[in-house]
Amino acid sequence: MATSHDLLLGPSPNGQRYELNSPTALPVASGFLWNKRMMVHSTCRGYSTAQFMQPEPAKYSHAPNIEAKTFMQPEQNYYAHHPGRFVYIKDEDTNELFSAPYEPVRGKLDRFNFSHGQSDLQWTVEKLGIRVEMTLTLTVDEAVELWSVKVINVSGRPRHISVYPHFSIGYMSWMNQGASYREDLGGVVGTSVTPYQKPEDWPKQKDFKDKTYFLCEKPPVAWEARQSAFEGEGGLHAPSSILEAPRLSNSDAIYETPTAVVQYSEQFGPGEEQEYRFIFGPAKTDDEIREMRKAWLSAESFASAARDYHGYVTAGAGCLRIETPDKDLDNFVNNWLPRQVYYHGVTNRLSTDPQTRNYMQDNMGMAYIDPDVCRESIITALSQQKEDGSMPDGILLAAGATLKYINQIPHTDHCVWLPVALELYLGETGDFGILKQDVTGVKNETYTVFDRFCRAMDWLLTACDERGLSYLAQGDWCDPMNMAGIKGKGVSGWLTVATAYAASLWADICDEVGQIDLAAHFRNGVTRFNASANEHLWDGEWYARGITDDNVKFGVAADKEGRIWLNPQAWSILGGAASREQIAKMLPQVERQLGTPYGAAMFAPPYSGMRDDVGRVTQKFPGNGENGSVYNHASVFYIHSLYHIGEADRAYALLRQMIPGPSDADYIQRGQMPIFIPNYYRGAYHEYPRTAGRSSQLFNTGTVSWAYRSFIEGLCGLQGDKDGLKVNPQLPSHWEGIKVTRMFRGATLVFDMRRADVETVTVSLGKEVLPEARVTGFKEGETLELSVAVPRAQ
Amino acid sequence: MATSHDLLLGPSPNGQRYELNSPTALPVASGFLWNKRMMVHSTCRGYSTAQFMQPEPAKYSHAPNIEAKTFMQPEQNYYAHHPGRFVYIKDEDTNELFSAPYEPVRGKLDRFNFSHGQSDLQWTVEKLGIRVEMTLTLTVDEAVELWSVKVINVSGRPRHISVYPHFSIGYMSWMNQGASYREDLGGVVGTSVTPYQKPEDWPKQKDFKDKTYFLCEKPPVAWEARQSAFEGEGGLHAPSSILEAPRLSNSDAIYETPTAVVQYSEQFGPGEEQEYRFIFGPAKTDDEIREMRKAWLSAESFASAARDYHGYVTAGAGCLRIETPDKDLDNFVNNWLPRQVYYHGVTNRLSTDPQTRNYMQDNMGMAYIDPDVCRESIITALSQQKEDGSMPDGILLAAGATLKYINQIPHTDHCVWLPVALELYLGETGDFGILKQDVTGVKNETYTVFDRFCRAMDWLLTACDERGLSYLAQGDWCDPMNMAGIKGKGVSGWLTVATAYAASLWADICDEVGQIDLAAHFRNGVTRFNASANEHLWDGEWYARGITDDNVKFGVAADKEGRIWLNPQAWSILGGAASREQIAKMLPQVERQLGTPYGAAMFAPPYSGMRDDVGRVTQKFPGNGENGSVYNHASVFYIHSLYHIGEADRAYALLRQMIPGPSDADYIQRGQMPIFIPNYYRGAYHEYPRTAGRSSQLFNTGTVSWAYRSFIEGLCGLQGDKDGLKVNPQLPSHWEGIKVTRMFRGATLVFDMRRADVETVTVSLGKEVLPEARVTGFKEGETLELSVAVPRAQ
Repeated sequence: MATSHDLLLGPSPNGQRYELNSPTALPVASGFLWNKRMMVHSTCRGYSTAQFMQPEPAKYSHAPNIEAKTFMQPEQNYYAHHPGRFVYIKDEDTNELFSAPYEPVRGKLDRFNFSHGQSDLQWTVEKLGIRVEMTLTLTVDEAVELWSVKVINVSGRPRHISVYPHFSIGYMSWMNQGASYREDLGGVVGTSVTPYQKPEDWPKQKDFKDKTYFLCEKPPVAWEARQSAFEGEGGLHAPSSILEAPRLSNSDAIYETPTAVVQYSEQFGPGEEQEYRFIFGPAKTDDEIREMRKAWLSAESFASAARDYHGYVTAGAGCLRIETPDKDLDNFVNNWLPRQVYYHGVTNRLSTDPQTRNYMQDNMGMAYIDPDVCRESIITALSQQKEDGSMPDGILLAAGATLKYINQIPHTDHCVWLPVALELYLGETGDFGILKQDVTGVKNETYTVFDRFCRAMDWLLTACDERGLSYLAQGDWCDPMNMAGIKGKGVSGWLTVATAYAASLWADICDEVGQIDLAAHFRNGVTRFNASANEHLWDGEWYARGITDDNVKFGVAADKEGRIWLNPQAWSILGGAASREQIAKMLPQVERQLGTPYGAAMFAPPYSGMRDDVGRVTQKFPGNGENGSVYNHASVFYIHSLYHIGEADRAYALLRQMIPGPSDADYIQRGQMPIFIPNYYRGAYHEYPRTAGRSSQLFNTGTVSWAYRSFIEGLCGLQGDKDGLKVNPQLPSHWEGIKVTRMFRGATLVFDMRRADVETVTVSLGKEVLPEARVTGFKEGETLELSVAVPRAQ
Repeated sequence: MATSHDLLLGPSPNGQRYELNSPTALPVASGFLWNKRMMVHSTCRGYSTAQFMQPEPAKYSHAPNIEAKTFMQPEQNYYAHHPGRFVYIKDEDTNELFSAPYEPVRGKLDRFNFSHGQSDLQWTVEKLGIRVEMTLTLTVDEAVELWSVKVINVSGRPRHISVYPHFSIGYMSWMNQGASYREDLGGVVGTSVTPYQKPEDWPKQKDFKDKTYFLCEKPPVAWEARQSAFEGEGGLHAPSSILEAPRLSNSDAIYETPTAVVQYSEQFGPGEEQEYRFIFGPAKTDDEIREMRKAWLSAESFASAARDYHGYVTAGAGCLRIETPDKDLDNFVNNWLPRQVYYHGVTNRLSTDPQTRNYMQDNMGMAYIDPDVCRESIITALSQQKEDGSMPDGILLAAGATLKYINQIPHTDHCVWLPVALELYLGETGDFGILKQDVTGVKNETYTVFDRFCRAMDWLLTACDERGLSYLAQGDWCDPMNMAGIKGKGVSGWLTVATAYAASLWADICDEVGQIDLAAHFRNGVTRFNASANEHLWDGEWYARGITDDNVKFGVAADKEGRIWLNPQAWSILGGAASREQIAKMLPQVERQLGTPYGAAMFAPPYSGMRDDVGRVTQKFPGNGENGSVYNHASVFYIHSLYHIGEADRAYALLRQMIPGPSDADYIQRGQMPIFIPNYYRGAYHEYPRTAGRSSQLFNTGTVSWAYRSFIEGLCGLQGDKDGLKVNPQLPSHWEGIKVTRMFRGATLVFDMRRADVETVTVSLGKEVLPEARVTGFKEGETLELSVAVPRAQ
């Protein structure tokens, strides 16, 4: 187990990398790279999980047994034969062995460094006087990993070394699998046929890339393509074929578990180094493999790929640069958070049927990075709107895509996310023209965007019972709350107040475009839903989570478990249901009952077992997943609501808790570097303190667009409107000032925000004090330097 | 890698065990135990795969990742974290470590013995002067493993030893998993909830046994329930918690991969021993676990369970004992083959929807062991007959069972297996009364068994094209030949001649019960189908396998791959299509083109890639599965046909090839002890000689009832008829005689069969020569000693 002393966790000088100096025990530090076709999630110890799209996610490096096809799982489990990319180094004179980066030999290293950049992953490992530097990068368009392995003799004396890169292929298929070194292609190639039984499945998969190639720029002296021949009785940690033989035995795999291992035998003078390049990925044909080799496997191609891929990733650099008293926060917000937002926006989580709510929120974040993508996604979603105005459970993005997993379960909240995303898009772009655009639907019906929004909002406002409370069905935002409304009667406290919020956002937009009557119509809905919430769901100090099919109110003081939920509180603030007095009661209850050192739990106390009028959430492990975890996607709504009412300190504290590390103690508890915000940290802080705070390690989460939004609109207070940028910073009270660079509609607005003896926020351009705290009249390409006087905290 | 010198493979003196004295490299020797509720497949190295029924197969000891739910796979893959049952032994004075039986430490042992009995598995391992004896047995009715671990100090000096049993629990569920030592229950208990998303799945699984218990008769001094805490950085082969600490750390698993490890710390005087008992299995509630402990976890319960379970297994001892010049054959046929037949008959392969053809053939074998089971299965199958007389693809055996996997694919052969099974049942029992029994079907329609057979045969005789050839649909007997007839036009050469055979068997039965007109009607069908086969499918030296939808004949001399198939030849002999002249041409072609040292390939040459007018069989790996493998289920049909025409030497040679080992060289190639016949040995003998002959390790196969039948009816020539037992031994020509004990309709008939100068088989009872080679008039409970004069080989 790594101690905090070992870790030396921190950003490299340029702030674009994060580093770790110890191969920490499980849960392990990890990071991810992606492009348009693939994703690779690698741990500091050398394990990797990679997926590519064809069009559904598929693998070219497999587990050792037949894995279930499943959605991305949290807290990924690692084990000896987990897929990975490793390099064994053997001293030919002494037969000593180690492996880079750390697995599978797990020897004590003289030096270890895992360095996670925006567009690459690097490992530096030293032992036996040999340094190994491994670098992984991707290309922009292809499903291929580019690996550079540099071996350097730092021992000061001549050495005879064998280098054995070992890339897992794993159990490819029960139907057909094999592998061999292909002289004509220059590497190990695994072949398989994706298994199927029904003949109608064959046409769907006949063009699958069922081959896995591991190509070597420099021809090796020997190879193994069969896992068991490689390991022998030594096992992965001490392979017999390395320790007991001078040369790998050139063994093929014939319906045996394939692997890819090659051997280089080298003489190194003192200080001498050798760089090897490999490419690893899926293909359908030998010709394709040949072309990949030609296109990518050279020093020049690697260099240009790294440049291009870096350009691709940094195109998602976002619209905000901050300098605050909190340097780690700056690094995260300036470099890492927009990277994660961008990942969501361009990959849609490597899914062909993103949940409608995820699709809207992920693309909402893209409004800050590439607003056209956000715009397009709004149109795409609306084009799949149903005839009654409701939205489907998932948005299909590829020909032949189907609704899978959770998208086969009816949810009632999807319409909420339309105005939420649109509000941000309009604020960022001022593109009210989108509302006039025609959108033709699946039944060939055409409506404008404006009309489709009205239809969606009207659907939301009618999807309620006689009390005016929104139906819950098999889940609102909380997927596994799947029993409370399954009979069609149960209602959602959150969705009731969220409907009010959505309708109020839409009413504001109606106003903006002069549709006064419609605005009034929707505001009337807001009033109605808020009144219903207050009549039926206010529990004295907070709002109930809902009422079950059998008319049992839950998320109330009388409950021993699941007593208070974050979401109804957050959205009752946003939508206006909660009065100032109610808010004054709610906030301390949230802090007292939901607060933990790792953020606010989604609800508390966690359920200890099945409550069959609530559903699956109660069967999840307490503290993991949604059962009382610090579910960041719920936290960000609450943070958003806190900024909404000027609760700057409370909001900042929760935002800060969401960012892992960089203190070693925090890292050890959470098991995660400050590279991304995970979808949850374990909760059950009182019940299971040992694991509370641990990261899910899952970087797919609707959290990130909201977190970015909170920094931009909340903390920095820089939100666009029809033709300007409002300025209303909400600095934590212990901050005296910050500097902010905000890219906005083509202009660069540089703010120096400082506390001053002012009553209200005051913005100056040079010596000119602006008439209101709002910047207008800037031009594309222009840079303005502004100073902002921020009232001192009370 | 084990050398042949290490293995010393062989039966123990009583012939009821098989032994191995080296922990062989992969593929590994393995065996299996089962009862009414469960099955456990264990390797000599300590890995295990166990399933129990609830009612579908489920696991209580899991892989380290999320496994796919799949049908039983051949050539099971093993890897470091594969589920297993291990015992680590640490010398407390020297910190030396080894593990029994072999995994995960894989240390060089001073002694190893794996001993597979009919109703238990035993391992004896010695190292560091410590002997470990592990025994696994089951109970008759429950899903629980009973483990005894005896530790003996054979070093001759006092020792301080820690004993750490380690039983894998593995990745239970992404939804909920954890484990801890439960003082109140006396063992490690893992808890989980089988994951689901659709609420309608919850009622189906809410009574699942989602807990895994590992209970210790003697309280341990310490324990671990978390995999990572157990392993530390040492890994499974050198666990840190064992090597770096005096005591396990009592770590629970909180949504972390669970395991079950306990520690005993003991002082052993010279020669002193200690026996530990453990039970391991699934449960729903703590109360259930408590009751399992009470019922099973004591020396007395273990002893009575072992007795009862042995009684259960040996109740399937079969109806044949032979003494031949081939002692290994005797051992296999007398002890192991009926055990495997019995397994199929009582478990239906742990499936709730066995394929109709498997169900009929597996239960056909039960006619030799427990004819009532066979009778019941014929009735059960017929009760699911469709209105048009055809049979469904699978027979549903449990409430709520559905057709899964291959049973969702339409096949055309299921009716064939009805008279095939019935013929054997009638021969064994003479129970012609079954034909008059009423069977009520799914639509409440009632027909007698006789009528239902007529309907099935009439359906078969009409399911043909205008040429009189049987439709192939998406598969006949060969599941993955799924493209040749998918358009509804392609025809099966095998099914055409098999239909003739089935109809001829049924016509004989019609004759027996005096239905002369119906017999003639069905014989007319036989003639028609055989004529069609000869007109359209005879290819000059053998019969074609079929004709595709696009009228392409395949399995013919013009084919480069898949040129000759075994099944059409075998069944054209059985059904009478093949004339003596045709047979004389076929047999040498089968030998020349299909013969290998491991048996006859199902077809040859294997397909090297997709032939999309044949189907999935061509996409399977050449030599594995059905693509040109030595598919024993096809071989047994051919063997049956060879005995049918008196080809005793050819039949014996193939039967003998089917039985693995016991020569070490044969064992090493096949990777299997002579415990069971696998469903295939790898083929592609010419293309992939290294792996040809390797066992699938899959003991589920329709082969075994036929193999047993061939020994009984063919080699020993002892087939029942309406009121007697025909005697027509077909000894291989190099045998001078055999002794046979045949249990038949309650009598014990002991035959001394010897070559003599006779023209025809001559049977004598005492000095009396029977009027024909047929024994009649014996009584239940009676033992008759008969001598049989067998004509010398020509």
